[in-house]
Amino acid sequence: MANNLITFTTDFGTSDHYVGAMKGVIYKLNPQAQIVDISNAVNSFDILDGALTIAQTYQFFPPDTIHMVIVDPGVGTARRPLLVTTEKHKFIAPDNGVLSLVYEREERLSVRHITSEHYFLSPISQTFHGRDIFAPCAGWLSKGVETSKFGEEVTDFARFAAPKPKPVSPQILKGVVLKTDKFGNMITNFTVKEVPALFQTPTPPFKVLVNSKEVNIMRAAYAQGMHNEVFAIIGSMGYLELASNRGAASRLLGADRGSEVGIVIEGVNYSAPAAPPAAPPQAAAPA
Amino acid sequence: MANNLITFTTDFGTSDHYVGAMKGVIYKLNPQAQIVDISNAVNSFDILDGALTIAQTYQFFPPDTIHMVIVDPGVGTARRPLLVTTEKHKFIAPDNGVLSLVYEREERLSVRHITSEHYFLSPISQTFHGRDIFAPCAGWLSKGVETSKFGEEVTDFARFAAPKPKPVSPQILKGVVLKTDKFGNMITNFTVKEVPALFQTPTPPFKVLVNSKEVNIMRAAYAQGMHNEVFAIIGSMGYLELASNRGAASRLLGADRGSEVGIVIEGVNYSAPAAPPAAPPQAAAPA
Amino acid sequence: MANNLITFTTDFGTSDHYVGAMKGVIYKLNPQAQIVDISNAVNSFDILDGALTIAQTYQFFPPDTIHMVIVDPGVGTARRPLLVTTEKHKFIAPDNGVLSLVYEREERLSVRHITSEHYFLSPISQTFHGRDIFAPCAGWLSKGVETSKFGEEVTDFARFAAPKPKPVSPQILKGVVLKTDKFGNMITNFTVKEVPALFQTPTPPFKVLVNSKEVNIMRAAYAQGMHNEVFAIIGSMGYLELASNRGAASRLLGADRGSEVGIVIEGVNYSAPAAPPAAPPQAAAPA
Repeated sequence: MANNLITFTTDFGTSDHYVGAMKGVIYKLNPQAQIVDISNAVNSFDILDGALTIAQTYQFFPPDTIHMVIVDPGVGTARRPLLVTTEKHKFIAPDNGVLSLVYEREERLSVRHITSEHYFLSPISQTFHGRDIFAPCAGWLSKGVETSKFGEEVTDFARFAAPKPKPVSPQILKGVVLKTDKFGNMITNFTVKEVPALFQTPTPPFKVLVNSKEVNIMRAAYAQGMHNEVFAIIGSMGYLELASNRGAASRLLGADRGSEVGIVIEGVNYSAPAAPPAAPPQAAAPA
Repeated sequence: MANNLITFTTDFGTSDHYVGAMKGVIYKLNPQAQIVDISNAVNSFDILDGALTIAQTYQFFPPDTIHMVIVDPGVGTARRPLLVTTEKHKFIAPDNGVLSLVYEREERLSVRHITSEHYFLSPISQTFHGRDIFAPCAGWLSKGVETSKFGEEVTDFARFAAPKPKPVSPQILKGVVLKTDKFGNMITNFTVKEVPALFQTPTPPFKVLVNSKEVNIMRAAYAQGMHNEVFAIIGSMGYLELASNRGAASRLLGADRGSEVGIVIEGVNYSAPAAPPAAPPQAAAPA
Repeated sequence: MANNLITFTTDFGTSDHYVGAMKGVIYKLNPQAQIVDISNAVNSFDILDGALTIAQTYQFFPPDTIHMVIVDPGVGTARRPLLVTTEKHKFIAPDNGVLSLVYEREERLSVRHITSEHYFLSPISQTFHGRDIFAPCAGWLSKGVETSKFGEEVTDFARFAAPKPKPVSPQILKGVVLKTDKFGNMITNFTVKEVPALFQTPTPPFKVLVNSKEVNIMRAAYAQGMHNEVFAIIGSMGYLELASNRGAASRLLGADRGSEVGIVIEGVNYSAPAAPPAAPPQAAAPA
């Protein structure tokens, strides 16, 4: 079945010709294609950033949308090109874990190793499979070529677990900043699974510790924050965020992606570090 | 009547998933939609920048285009979501003044408070109404839902007057830099209404004073400027601009958005500051 | 014959209203248009950067695509607006050489000076012909107006030769960095024509000299590089590139667009500088 909607989630940037070349390849194969940029400014080489970006968006798109997710520092090596089919969506990506958070959300998965070279451009460059392999496969797929034509199913595809908060003492749960957004909001990896008390109203007294600074205020809207105050807020991705009203929390805290985040909640105790860590949370599904 | 053309003017940036999520929501509701990015890189939280961006573009689009204008630092507070209809266009935006320059240009306006929650996603996040409220309303609107279905008309919507130049002495008119563009051109708020002499050829002797520097040359094309010279030029937005040939006037002047700009024109006198200020100019309509 | 696909290659940036205004103009004329951004972040005023961007992309698009290439520091001067037709594509651009690398690749060219003012917006600004002249011409062209209606053919159009490597001693060939991409990869102007030995496997011993640093390793994939190592690699544009594995070669070398690059290859001798330079290479066509 043909589907003309194709999304791009890549780290190719918006300044170079890379994204334009991939679009040309697709339109030449399928002039009826409708290409939608999710983001082409994923942090360079940052597979987790790509994984978060597609995981936060694909479920909002119509059934049968084709999602190209190209963050591919291993281009030209033996890492495989994949075609992944879930109940409602299709994905084309390198086999490096960039779809890990999609795998985490989806119960039914078919993962194929794309090997049908007659769908590729020729010659194939060493450094730009987005143009030479992934884009033409997306083009043919959008024209209705069956997924089975692209290659065999595999089960040993790469996946990583998103970093989960862990207790480091009976009082402290330690997590990490997953990303800083354009506004300077810092998205942590704490969800309702690890810190349910912070997702309720009213919240008990708590402290979020980042870069030797302490955040102990929860707000329900950015605009409730005082000038230059950093507060916690339940964000739209399903994660606890640190934010500031019309300001950049990341700058005020001097922290960024990868910074460690400790949380202490009054009256909450965790098992000692030696005990098994909390069950891996499922990333919140916004819709 | 259905219209599939939907534009985006937002401060959500191009690096995160925000714009992609909004596009997904719209395409899921209306696969025939055609979404056009005007800009998603409005300065963060900058309502004036968003107001200028949409005011400089909407009138070039076809009748019945739906314009989403989401610069929304008050998301999650009591500020209302609006659906605005003018003679030829439709706008969806938070009620924070971001449409003020549209209101200024349009004689006939219908402004509705969007209250029909059955058009929204569920649940609604506290921090991303672009995805949860504004995008689905745009999607339904593009499918032909009548504007009256979204909520009641209101008259107390927020609007601000764009900053207008004022005389500060009989010789000096004082204005401001409204924005610096990608090239470093500085767009002031002086129009043909306040300084008609500078919009004619030849111009009388004049001085533009910015950051203790003086600009006294008018050029008719960027390429007429000398190397590292800053000159005045009548820009395409209908405002007087300060520019440099293949260089950034903002860097050469050490000035930026919000910098004060004084203008002295030989032979022109203004009433004293105590007198009523000049009539508010109408922003120039480029087409 | 009508063709609805129109691409944008411009230096107008993604932060301002410029690109949005041009899109509006086109959609108002032709609501069936399909506009594709190749890049709107060409370096400001940088005609070579624009020339490289369109030359690396247009051939991937379907026949009869209309390419708008607007890097136009001479806007408002006597430089002409052009409509260029090649065997398979159409281009609209200022006559400043921004299509030079297209001219270099195409055997059959028709170049017309656009003079039919009834296709322009009115009034025409001094500073934004992208909106007032180029976009409406693209809109009319996409509706099927014949190219001959826009103006007469000319033969004295501006073109420049892309900078070519030249021997500066019997051992050293000197070239230049054409551009640095989003990843920090440095694209040089060395192709298979000037340094065929480096495009074969295995390569002979060689040195690339940039900014007093020496690169002497060739890799077949980015991921083969060691941490913080800068290596040479044959890139997807047909040029020799300098790159680093998950890092920015430009930062590691302290070099950028315009930096000089010397190459010494063991066993390869060039004629003395006084002799005629090597034949101008044709830029590699990726497909």
